[in-house]
Amino acid sequence: MFAPLQNDTFLRACLRQATDHTPVWLMRQAGRYLPEYRATRAKAGSFMGLATNTDYATEVTLQPLDRYPLDAAILFSDILTVPDAMGLGLSFALGEGPKFATAVRDEAAVAKLEVPDMNKLRYVFDAVTSIRKALNGRVPLIGFSGSPWTLACYMVEGAGSDDYRLVKTMMYQRPDLMHRMLAVNADAVATYLNAQIDAGAQAVMIFDSWGGVMADAAFHTFSLTYTKRVLAQLKREHDGVKIPRLVFTKGGGQWLESMAPLDCEVLGLDWTVNLAQARARVGEDSPDGKPGKALQGNLDPNVLFAGPEQIEAEAVQLLESFGTPHTNKSRGGATHIFNLGHGISQFTPPESVETLVRAVHTHSRKMRAAAG
Amino acid sequence: MFAPLQNDTFLRACLRQATDHTPVWLMRQAGRYLPEYRATRAKAGSFMGLATNTDYATEVTLQPLDRYPLDAAILFSDILTVPDAMGLGLSFALGEGPKFATAVRDEAAVAKLEVPDMNKLRYVFDAVTSIRKALNGRVPLIGFSGSPWTLACYMVEGAGSDDYRLVKTMMYQRPDLMHRMLAVNADAVATYLNAQIDAGAQAVMIFDSWGGVMADAAFHTFSLTYTKRVLAQLKREHDGVKIPRLVFTKGGGQWLESMAPLDCEVLGLDWTVNLAQARARVGEDSPDGKPGKALQGNLDPNVLFAGPEQIEAEAVQLLESFGTPHTNKSRGGATHIFNLGHGISQFTPPESVETLVRAVHTHSRKMRAAAG
Repeated sequence: MFAPLQNDTFLRACLRQATDHTPVWLMRQAGRYLPEYRATRAKAGSFMGLATNTDYATEVTLQPLDRYPLDAAILFSDILTVPDAMGLGLSFALGEGPKFATAVRDEAAVAKLEVPDMNKLRYVFDAVTSIRKALNGRVPLIGFSGSPWTLACYMVEGAGSDDYRLVKTMMYQRPDLMHRMLAVNADAVATYLNAQIDAGAQAVMIFDSWGGVMADAAFHTFSLTYTKRVLAQLKREHDGVKIPRLVFTKGGGQWLESMAPLDCEVLGLDWTVNLAQARARVGEDSPDGKPGKALQGNLDPNVLFAGPEQIEAEAVQLLESFGTPHTNKSRGGATHIFNLGHGISQFTPPESVETLVRAVHTHSRKMRAAAG
Repeated sequence: MFAPLQNDTFLRACLRQATDHTPVWLMRQAGRYLPEYRATRAKAGSFMGLATNTDYATEVTLQPLDRYPLDAAILFSDILTVPDAMGLGLSFALGEGPKFATAVRDEAAVAKLEVPDMNKLRYVFDAVTSIRKALNGRVPLIGFSGSPWTLACYMVEGAGSDDYRLVKTMMYQRPDLMHRMLAVNADAVATYLNAQIDAGAQAVMIFDSWGGVMADAAFHTFSLTYTKRVLAQLKREHDGVKIPRLVFTKGGGQWLESMAPLDCEVLGLDWTVNLAQARARVGEDSPDGKPGKALQGNLDPNVLFAGPEQIEAEAVQLLESFGTPHTNKSRGGATHIFNLGHGISQFTPPESVETLVRAVHTHSRKMRAAAG
């Protein structure tokens, strides 16, 4: 059905296998910093108009790949499509974050929640298949969703928040309601990601964008537990090919040890994390043979506002901090997927991305050559 | 000049000495959640009108102490008074965060910066002396300032930010300008805190509120370096009495090991940090005899929106997580100062604070009794 994959660098790095260079892609790589994206978005009229139209979603997903030799594509969509399918009414005012028409704030609203009919998300699966075809094997396609906790944040707050007061009030005051919401979210996200895999996604990523706003104990009880519940239900392969699973908790650097046992292949890191330390903490197999995680990240997106010399220097610094990947059979591999520590800014000069991608490819090849 | 101190629990815990109970105070304890604060603020007309009036500043500082048996008072002021004295024009629109009339965004603006004449901050030192007198020895008074980096964030952005794009652009693009600004800020903050000590502050706290937004390497280069520069210049005692120094980096939990060698007595922790782990990491003396830090924190302020049973349970959980303090001479003490992990929310029900303070005092006494 789909053309054979020509560049499997990203998938190999996810699976902790040797690669010629460190693969690189950028969170939100299809986005407002690209003039061609803004043109398509203007045609579509709205963010959801863009995301729900198969042709437009395909077009914008491929735009950054036509400019830069990125090693992966990521589905153009939003982390909040699942609660939208639950009937909450997702929208994006121009220049603002997501908003729900209906917020979930009491027992009755929580009781009504259920795993949505996946037909309501058909537009996502259609986009996945269309993009996969359009990619024609150039690079693999990543599918994604928000984590159960991150969805709950938006479902209760109704929008972004700077203190998460409403969702945390429910969590501390009525943990029973929060657990019910998170269980529904987890089962919905798992069903949703499995359908993306069936439609052609070659890896899937769970964005726990708001995991890092929680207190230590609460993170473990209300976020990590439900990320595990998603992972336990995910397909591990499709048509005999492994489907790597990536988990990214923004602000989760302190909890890497808690995430190391997750049933996934890759952990995403934001820019606050020291890559060398992260590799030592969770990137290598443990002495008793438990496999480590591939690590993804973690350049501060604001580096892309500096000049080309500084961008190159910062990219080199991160690559050197991780060190040369290895795939020593006796200890297990340690691999790195280069990315930003969060989504690229809409104000980024497009030429900065060119500089970054070239620097990652060039320097990571040099490091491998130097290591023999 | 000042009345003798009747409750030295906070100061003793800062110095890792034994106490009968775990001392507790709350960041922003004098604030909008108190109706009596809102009444005084209405009389003053504006936040700066309140902060610059000695009588009003004294009145609001003491308000929470009249309600709750807190173990410390903190000067009513703002972290941004120093750049205001540099001529940047600080103001607070009602319901909004701080704003500067002038932002520092280019080489010329940075070149003009200098340590301000401390007479421009006379209102702060007058307030410190007035509050200290009004306290009449009930509890110690904490003075404070923003950290050099946190000041720089606001000085460049001109206000709060959700991406710190402008300040980080300057940092990555023109590190020379950023270093010059941070050096001036550090010397100004040190001079300012020493003047607060002279005026009567019995402890001083540096708020690195935005340290946690930086990439790992940048935090060390641009924040920690200049916090050190402040600490190196601070008075260690006044009139023969030790003046503990507290450093709080919001979002700095991953960097505790980097902060352990700081020349200060106390590290503040936000709610993402596991207290038991923090104690093990930096709270005990090292085997080679380097002293550990007293730890301050770290309840999520949103816990105060739950009912009294949950508030008590969360307070107990944190106290038990730290464990019983000890002051074993051979290993050095490990002590805990209870606080929130960040400022109290303006929406907090005042009775929640009563519940919390009582729970901390009662349970921490029980723990000491149980430990014999």
